[in-house]
Amino acid sequence: MTAYRPLDEEKAIQIAREINQLFPENAELSCREIGDGNLNLVFHITDAANGASVILKQALPYAKVVGESWPLTLDRARIESEKLMLEGKLAPGLVPVVYHYDAQLALTAMEDLSSHHIMRRGLMEGTRYPLFSEHISTFMANTLFFTSDLGMNQQDKKQLVKAFINPELCKITEDLIFDDPYTDSPNNSYDSHLEDAAAALRTDGELHLEIALLREKFLTQAQALLHGDLHTGSIFATPESTKVIDPEFAFYGPIGFDVGAVFANLLLNYAGQVHWSRDEQERAAFRTYLLRTIEEIWNAFDSKFRALWDQHGVDRMASSAPGYRELYMKRLLQDSIGFAGAKMVRRIVGLSHVADIDQIPDAAKREAAQRLALAIGTALIRRNRKANSIRDLLEIAATREDVHST
Amino acid sequence: MTAYRPLDEEKAIQIAREINQLFPENAELSCREIGDGNLNLVFHITDAANGASVILKQALPYAKVVGESWPLTLDRARIESEKLMLEGKLAPGLVPVVYHYDAQLALTAMEDLSSHHIMRRGLMEGTRYPLFSEHISTFMANTLFFTSDLGMNQQDKKQLVKAFINPELCKITEDLIFDDPYTDSPNNSYDSHLEDAAAALRTDGELHLEIALLREKFLTQAQALLHGDLHTGSIFATPESTKVIDPEFAFYGPIGFDVGAVFANLLLNYAGQVHWSRDEQERAAFRTYLLRTIEEIWNAFDSKFRALWDQHGVDRMASSAPGYRELYMKRLLQDSIGFAGAKMVRRIVGLSHVADIDQIPDAAKREAAQRLALAIGTALIRRNRKANSIRDLLEIAATREDVHST
Repeated sequence: MTAYRPLDEEKAIQIAREINQLFPENAELSCREIGDGNLNLVFHITDAANGASVILKQALPYAKVVGESWPLTLDRARIESEKLMLEGKLAPGLVPVVYHYDAQLALTAMEDLSSHHIMRRGLMEGTRYPLFSEHISTFMANTLFFTSDLGMNQQDKKQLVKAFINPELCKITEDLIFDDPYTDSPNNSYDSHLEDAAAALRTDGELHLEIALLREKFLTQAQALLHGDLHTGSIFATPESTKVIDPEFAFYGPIGFDVGAVFANLLLNYAGQVHWSRDEQERAAFRTYLLRTIEEIWNAFDSKFRALWDQHGVDRMASSAPGYRELYMKRLLQDSIGFAGAKMVRRIVGLSHVADIDQIPDAAKREAAQRLALAIGTALIRRNRKANSIRDLLEIAATREDVHST
Repeated sequence: MTAYRPLDEEKAIQIAREINQLFPENAELSCREIGDGNLNLVFHITDAANGASVILKQALPYAKVVGESWPLTLDRARIESEKLMLEGKLAPGLVPVVYHYDAQLALTAMEDLSSHHIMRRGLMEGTRYPLFSEHISTFMANTLFFTSDLGMNQQDKKQLVKAFINPELCKITEDLIFDDPYTDSPNNSYDSHLEDAAAALRTDGELHLEIALLREKFLTQAQALLHGDLHTGSIFATPESTKVIDPEFAFYGPIGFDVGAVFANLLLNYAGQVHWSRDEQERAAFRTYLLRTIEEIWNAFDSKFRALWDQHGVDRMASSAPGYRELYMKRLLQDSIGFAGAKMVRRIVGLSHVADIDQIPDAAKREAAQRLALAIGTALIRRNRKANSIRDLLEIAATREDVHST
């Protein structure tokens, strides 16, 4: 790793030229750094002559969060590129194509997805994605089933566990999702009008027990190779296409953590619709759309996962033991509901927030969205081990009401 | 690994001489190979002049089981020596001291324990080990707590998971314990008089569900660094001393798998007492001793594990969430009971048996022991998720009766 150095735009162009046949030999390339500068440099390189383009993503050896900077392994670039390539095989068309990976530079060259939009932004603008539930359920069923002990050689799986040991990025999740929001942590950050709700989280023993159990699953359950950060900011979408990006948090963990991340971020947008919808009618309609999407995702994921199990199951006991599959899928649903709740709570009182809610300019509406997200999130956490159906989640969301939303 | 070659006795002496200050410079050493030749060479090297001695254990690049030979990684020697050294730190005095490890030769030089006996043999001869429950509960509480997410840095733990990925030896367990006994596998081996009982195992859906769930925990739950093969043949003992050996199956798995192994092997001896005790009175007394030992082990393990948690717990949520610890310890007990049952069943109908039962010369008594072991084992498997106390296990053992034992 001695040759590592952060690239500048000129050097990025030079590297892009060297990638096999991406651009004609004498192409005039232009380059723009479009990353947010917190964790990675992202270079967008284009050939105006023919419209060809590429993204170079380079990991920085530190993370900048709330103004501070701490060292962060460059190995996450290896994890990201290897995970992207594996996803490309298991769920073709649903992730950017990787052209090239340079370990020394912690650099991945990949398909440019400028024609897509970040899904979180799209949802804030009221865009509907009619194929999203179909795409994301395929992405999750394929990537999770085929990396689990149900769907791949169980000895090879252990080697994959080893290759994706990811302590530093897991630590971020362990702290920010499964600890900080439930104690008086300096990492927490929330609007002062939420002080009562944040204080209540710190003394709620029932909630703490559920979070401790979910945390334990995150720490110990090597069920499948997760994306690990599957929120709507990690999804590029158009109404016709879905591309999942940024799997640098990948590790072997509980399947429900990925599924729950999708649910949580749709529900955070649901809460934010107190502002983003123009009127009550539009709000009700968009919220109905979001809940229907969640239901479709679970139902499609559930049936695709079962179908893969039927066709490609490798575990004789798991396939033949009566009742095992029903129990497995029920626990997946329960985990997904619990993790969804944990992810909602942390986005309101923890370190890292979501634009769907933080960018609501009106304080009263923002507070209404925050309180609704907390009400749904905590109810999901409380319900998780008792849930029987995706309708448990839908019912919780639909029966929590906007507060102060006048 | 190019320099690997199996040692002969002369070469073993030469290596023993090179180990720092173990023997005087011109000592006359004698050497005897005392391994069973299946998996490892074991050289016992002694200096008659002063009684000093050492064991050199070298892994062979194959395993011989039922006459056949298949390749087996030499990396298990690294795993064994690293695990022994870690156990030596966490549970000093309860494992042989490691003097030296040679990766190229897959060779570990360790303390000679000739003054001890294999505990399985001792129990067959009616020996009691009054300190065993104290020693083994300390061994398990210390090695398991301090390698779990409760008792060590959670990022370092992930590196330890990586170092102890052990696919080949886990595969042996996955097949022989969690699959073969429940299907018509060519690996199975049992006396023909057990055909009805073996056939019943293959069609018992309730049992299959519980085995599938236990198998899943073995495959996915990276709870602590296990010994992985903690039967009474892996324990050297005297009435005053206990030394746990042979951790080549070490990997990150569910804690109950180690605890259950100890229970299972005491219960297999319990079943075998139909022969090993001279009369009914002695049999009843020794069986009472064995059940009391199991109860003492669990109670001591439970209280030591909780005490370590109090004093050295590193996980804030796990330590503070109300009810979490009770739930954790109850699940540990349930897992231990389930794994104990699975380990008993496989020793009767699976590939690898135990001398406590197989060496009973009289066929009727052997059958009685086998049927008792199966009755206890299957009842433990059926009860595991419903168990509340170690008394559930004791009650199951005490109420199953010897059959045909006249």
